[in-house]
Amino acid sequence: MTPAEIRTELLLAEELYEAWPLLSTSDRVEGFNMLPRDEAEDLFEMLDARDQLELLRHLSPREQRIWMRLLAPDDAADVIQETDDETERRRLLDLLDEPTRKEVLALLAYAEDEAGGLMNPRFARLRPDMTADAAISYLRRQREKQVETIYYAYVLDNDQRLLGVVSLRDLVTATPDARISDVMNTDIVSVGEQEDQEELARLFAEHDLTAIPVVDDQGRMKGVVTVDDIVDVVREEATEDMQKIGGTEALEGPYLQVELPRLFRARVPWLAALVVLEFGSVLTMSGFEETLHKVSLLALFIPLIVSCGGNSGSQASTLVVRAMALDEVRLRDWWRVMRRELATGGLLGLTLGCIGAAMAYAWMTAAEGSGAPLHAPIALTVGGGIVGVVLWGTTVGSMLPFILRTVHVDPACASGPFVATLVDATGMILYLGIATLVMHEALA
Amino acid sequence: MTPAEIRTELLLAEELYEAWPLLSTSDRVEGFNMLPRDEAEDLFEMLDARDQLELLRHLSPREQRIWMRLLAPDDAADVIQETDDETERRRLLDLLDEPTRKEVLALLAYAEDEAGGLMNPRFARLRPDMTADAAISYLRRQREKQVETIYYAYVLDNDQRLLGVVSLRDLVTATPDARISDVMNTDIVSVGEQEDQEELARLFAEHDLTAIPVVDDQGRMKGVVTVDDIVDVVREEATEDMQKIGGTEALEGPYLQVELPRLFRARVPWLAALVVLEFGSVLTMSGFEETLHKVSLLALFIPLIVSCGGNSGSQASTLVVRAMALDEVRLRDWWRVMRRELATGGLLGLTLGCIGAAMAYAWMTAAEGSGAPLHAPIALTVGGGIVGVVLWGTTVGSMLPFILRTVHVDPACASGPFVATLVDATGMILYLGIATLVMHEALA
Repeated sequence: MTPAEIRTELLLAEELYEAWPLLSTSDRVEGFNMLPRDEAEDLFEMLDARDQLELLRHLSPREQRIWMRLLAPDDAADVIQETDDETERRRLLDLLDEPTRKEVLALLAYAEDEAGGLMNPRFARLRPDMTADAAISYLRRQREKQVETIYYAYVLDNDQRLLGVVSLRDLVTATPDARISDVMNTDIVSVGEQEDQEELARLFAEHDLTAIPVVDDQGRMKGVVTVDDIVDVVREEATEDMQKIGGTEALEGPYLQVELPRLFRARVPWLAALVVLEFGSVLTMSGFEETLHKVSLLALFIPLIVSCGGNSGSQASTLVVRAMALDEVRLRDWWRVMRRELATGGLLGLTLGCIGAAMAYAWMTAAEGSGAPLHAPIALTVGGGIVGVVLWGTTVGSMLPFILRTVHVDPACASGPFVATLVDATGMILYLGIATLVMHEALA
Repeated sequence: MTPAEIRTELLLAEELYEAWPLLSTSDRVEGFNMLPRDEAEDLFEMLDARDQLELLRHLSPREQRIWMRLLAPDDAADVIQETDDETERRRLLDLLDEPTRKEVLALLAYAEDEAGGLMNPRFARLRPDMTADAAISYLRRQREKQVETIYYAYVLDNDQRLLGVVSLRDLVTATPDARISDVMNTDIVSVGEQEDQEELARLFAEHDLTAIPVVDDQGRMKGVVTVDDIVDVVREEATEDMQKIGGTEALEGPYLQVELPRLFRARVPWLAALVVLEFGSVLTMSGFEETLHKVSLLALFIPLIVSCGGNSGSQASTLVVRAMALDEVRLRDWWRVMRRELATGGLLGLTLGCIGAAMAYAWMTAAEGSGAPLHAPIALTVGGGIVGVVLWGTTVGSMLPFILRTVHVDPACASGPFVATLVDATGMILYLGIATLVMHEALA
């Protein structure tokens, strides 16, 4: 799309936003500058922090100031966190007004993925002894403060400790002279400043909440996390987990926007490590070279055996990794999971083993005629190899996430490719070991 | 945990909810009945529709009526949709009061995963000529109606057509005598009744919205979808996609709660289909049996080649499937994706090919001494095979999701295991074909 086309076609923020991933930086800036002011505001707020920073870098200092000041403190902190350059961070901070700068500096002290880093420090505060009507008038006067979460007002004592929460709906539907302390809900779900974002997402989903207050260890309220921020978090976390399960480092950007060298660098480490690891199967098999030389038919079934182990392992690890991410499975459940996977893996192995052995026997008979002495033992070996490798694959696939979590590595690293590679060498020992046992006469 | 322990330990909804997955049905019912009424209400609203139905089935008809009437119409519809038994559906519907039953019946006409099936038909309505103060008093009087989304009030004309939206925050912060038509926002994001839930999730994430109104094709407002429902949807969709990517049918329940026969049935179809498909590699390789017999060293590298193709294909398909789910990649982008994957796949193949060839050569030399005539050609074959299979794996892995979407199959079915199996047979043709070409003299 050329700038000329943008000029004639794209007049609305929504349309420019749709085209965003396809545009070059200069087209983005040009398109943004052509939008009417209110549409530009819509667009700017829709963009994520990375895109906001990219845009800011191409605007004049005066405009930078205007746009930075449009952002809520938590969003401004996100933009600043996008750059690692200390000078640029300083410069962006200096664009803010004094009180906001202080709020943003406080937010920057938290990690991006904990409650403190996600919260908005501006929220509506009420005193417990106000009436509902006074509270509404009070909130009305706060309109300039960009209090994002006015849907809930928080009731604090003189030490800023959180006593209760009143939804705006409670206020509006209460009798006008009701006391806040009588209307407020004291059964509050709150989190600490260091709470992890995955746990936050779980709380929002479980309790169907719109906002969760963040308190420090003395019970003083520091800010509020709203559910719209959490939708982004849930999507990002799922994307990262999926990419890891597929055997890639997290991309940190939309697929089409990540430059090729970065795409390569995210993918090569796992693949290279797996090639080296997979060499274990070469070493293992070299012990059976004699068997393979004498019964070369055995080699034809190697990809079949390898694939059965990899597929069943990849199933098991994906199920367990996702269940862990959703908190459906905890560390202490490992033995329950193991029992389930042994039972399921045994059944799956028997099913696939029968299919594999039957197909192998039928094919060999069709190709070379019946009665050849090795057909039955080879089919038996294929079937037995599949049973073993599937059972082993599901065990490794389901237990590896537990082992990783125990040593504080993200369980999602137990990717399908990783599990498959781990299973390959042992799969070959099983398959060729059975072959050597079953066919010892033919091999003698 | 025994019922006795529940009795002493679990007094709060939150705690019982945490233990829920570990409890038998009878323990759940007993625990639920022991909660004080307000805690029981909290718990009941936290449970998902499947667990709500399970609980209802074990309560007396009188209690069933109480609990069903506690639910908002959209949640009641979800519970009813959990059973396929027409008699039970009828019976559950009869527990509701007349107006709610009508609303629920209207909702049941929609599919579960479209906007109509997710929306709540109760929302706050205002007329455009009201004043802000009159609107607040009016909303105050609506308190009995369980209007979940009172945070936004919708401004409708006499034909129920949606004119604008007023946030409760706008109302509270407006001057008391301001007209609704002057305060309302007319730049509304709305969706049609048939809008898919994935598209809804994307809209919520993009626009940071709390609620989206649902309108029919005449612009009449039918209900409202709130973001708390969407957090669940986003998590469910990601789970389903991940399970498909891992080569499993969607489980439709938490891992530990799915009974073993259902777990088996969700996993066996793909695995069995892949075993049959994988037999293609056996057939392919049988054409090269002569080569494998004469140079049995070649067989040792088969798992290495197979694994490189599978791993690179699984990476590519996971990245593309996720990018499609997030709408970062559309059908028309297939050629851009193809070019990126050819470039990345070529680079990855060269890197892995060099590693593989070098390791193969070094190992053969160490094991059998240098100077053996076949070591260099075998190493070359391994390297060349890897380059080919990685390039082919990334191509198949990245294009298969596009093909599936074109024929209206969920792209997430392009699972790592599926792609790996598709690549195996062609990988063997490449590897053994190169071997036959390179070593034609030794084989003669």
